[in-house]
Amino acid sequence: MMTSPRWVDALTQALSFPENEYENTYQLATVDAESMPHVRTFMHREILHPDGFPNLPVLLTTTDVRTPKVTQIYCHPFTELAWWMSGSQDQFRVFGSVRIVTSPRTLCQAETYEEGLLALSKFQEQDYDWERKRLEIFDSISSDRKAGWCTPLPGSVMHSYEDAKKWPQTVPRLGEAQSEEDKRNQERALDNFALVLIEPTEVDWTQLGVNPWRRTRFTRNDGEWIEEIIVAS
Amino acid sequence: MMTSPRWVDALTQALSFPENEYENTYQLATVDAESMPHVRTFMHREILHPDGFPNLPVLLTTTDVRTPKVTQIYCHPFTELAWWMSGSQDQFRVFGSVRIVTSPRTLCQAETYEEGLLALSKFQEQDYDWERKRLEIFDSISSDRKAGWCTPLPGSVMHSYEDAKKWPQTVPRLGEAQSEEDKRNQERALDNFALVLIEPTEVDWTQLGVNPWRRTRFTRNDGEWIEEIIVAS
Repeated sequence: MMTSPRWVDALTQALSFPENEYENTYQLATVDAESMPHVRTFMHREILHPDGFPNLPVLLTTTDVRTPKVTQIYCHPFTELAWWMSGSQDQFRVFGSVRIVTSPRTLCQAETYEEGLLALSKFQEQDYDWERKRLEIFDSISSDRKAGWCTPLPGSVMHSYEDAKKWPQTVPRLGEAQSEEDKRNQERALDNFALVLIEPTEVDWTQLGVNPWRRTRFTRNDGEWIEEIIVAS
Repeated sequence: MMTSPRWVDALTQALSFPENEYENTYQLATVDAESMPHVRTFMHREILHPDGFPNLPVLLTTTDVRTPKVTQIYCHPFTELAWWMSGSQDQFRVFGSVRIVTSPRTLCQAETYEEGLLALSKFQEQDYDWERKRLEIFDSISSDRKAGWCTPLPGSVMHSYEDAKKWPQTVPRLGEAQSEEDKRNQERALDNFALVLIEPTEVDWTQLGVNPWRRTRFTRNDGEWIEEIIVAS
């Protein structure tokens, strides 16, 4: 009987603490084509696993396909993220593979996951409907945040901060477009909106809120999680 | 007349906001010998600059020389850090070169900084006393945190969390050792304690706490900072 690794329970529990109420973001690192490190803040969305395989968790977050991190991930599909919860003084570092799930209208769809990607290839085997999940997550995001995927190219130069006032300010939920403009914006936002899937293979959990500090390393080995107590630093 | 880049003032001001009281940490990304990304939380210590050159700021943080990030930095001395201040909803991403300043007792001292490292080579030209700064920062850290540099090798496997109770629990301030054991622990901690110097060449500041969002890119060009308004994402 496969069970959820203890780090998933620990992470979920830590997130539920009132003192960690605003700790739903983490910093995700990638490497560019020149081997330069990059890192930026992501909003945590969900942890999910293939049906019947709680031992194969996947972290889900979201992005705009037009940002450099997406190119970096396509070229070098590995990541580490650091999730510091200052309320409880817990740090979770998660290392693993990372994949992008875009709109079916873009070119980069229908990837076949290699065998080492135990979780993602299991989802594929089970015909998991990523497009349905993408639409569900899209709709769970506020209408003004959704408008962020209707901007000109992220990172391109603007004349003034005020220029942003001319861009769409809200994008309605699916099925709730009131005008042609709403529909166009929705379509554009959906084209740019992508899921980011992180399949962890190693997790390093440091607890600085206890005395003495505790640090635990979880390593996935053939779908089983090995747990070791290690020296904190 | 050289002036401090606007991002330093913005960062310093954001840090002074009461809502950012606990936001004195950031996530620093490095790349290992296999080009894999890594990231972990650091505590911000100081921003300093060479005498007369406020345009050449350096971020200072600290580490244990025995950790893998130090090896990663020696092999590939570039970094990006992401500093998310959830109180004011500001993100500062800082890309640049990174160097380690260890104890003079270790082998890795007396580095000559190449010309591209404008700030660090200027400090060197001015005979800046990094060892004095290292001791000053060491002493500014609490006695139980200092004991963290007297542990067995960080990341090595332990039998039980309780083992940590047998290790030194406090390391006194310099000049305040009461016993031979205190002195030994102080020496050991000082041998393992290192400064991390980040010389920024690009900074990306996103303000999500204003409407519309603002994003500004600062690029250092020959010691001058170019500022551009760019599209947020």
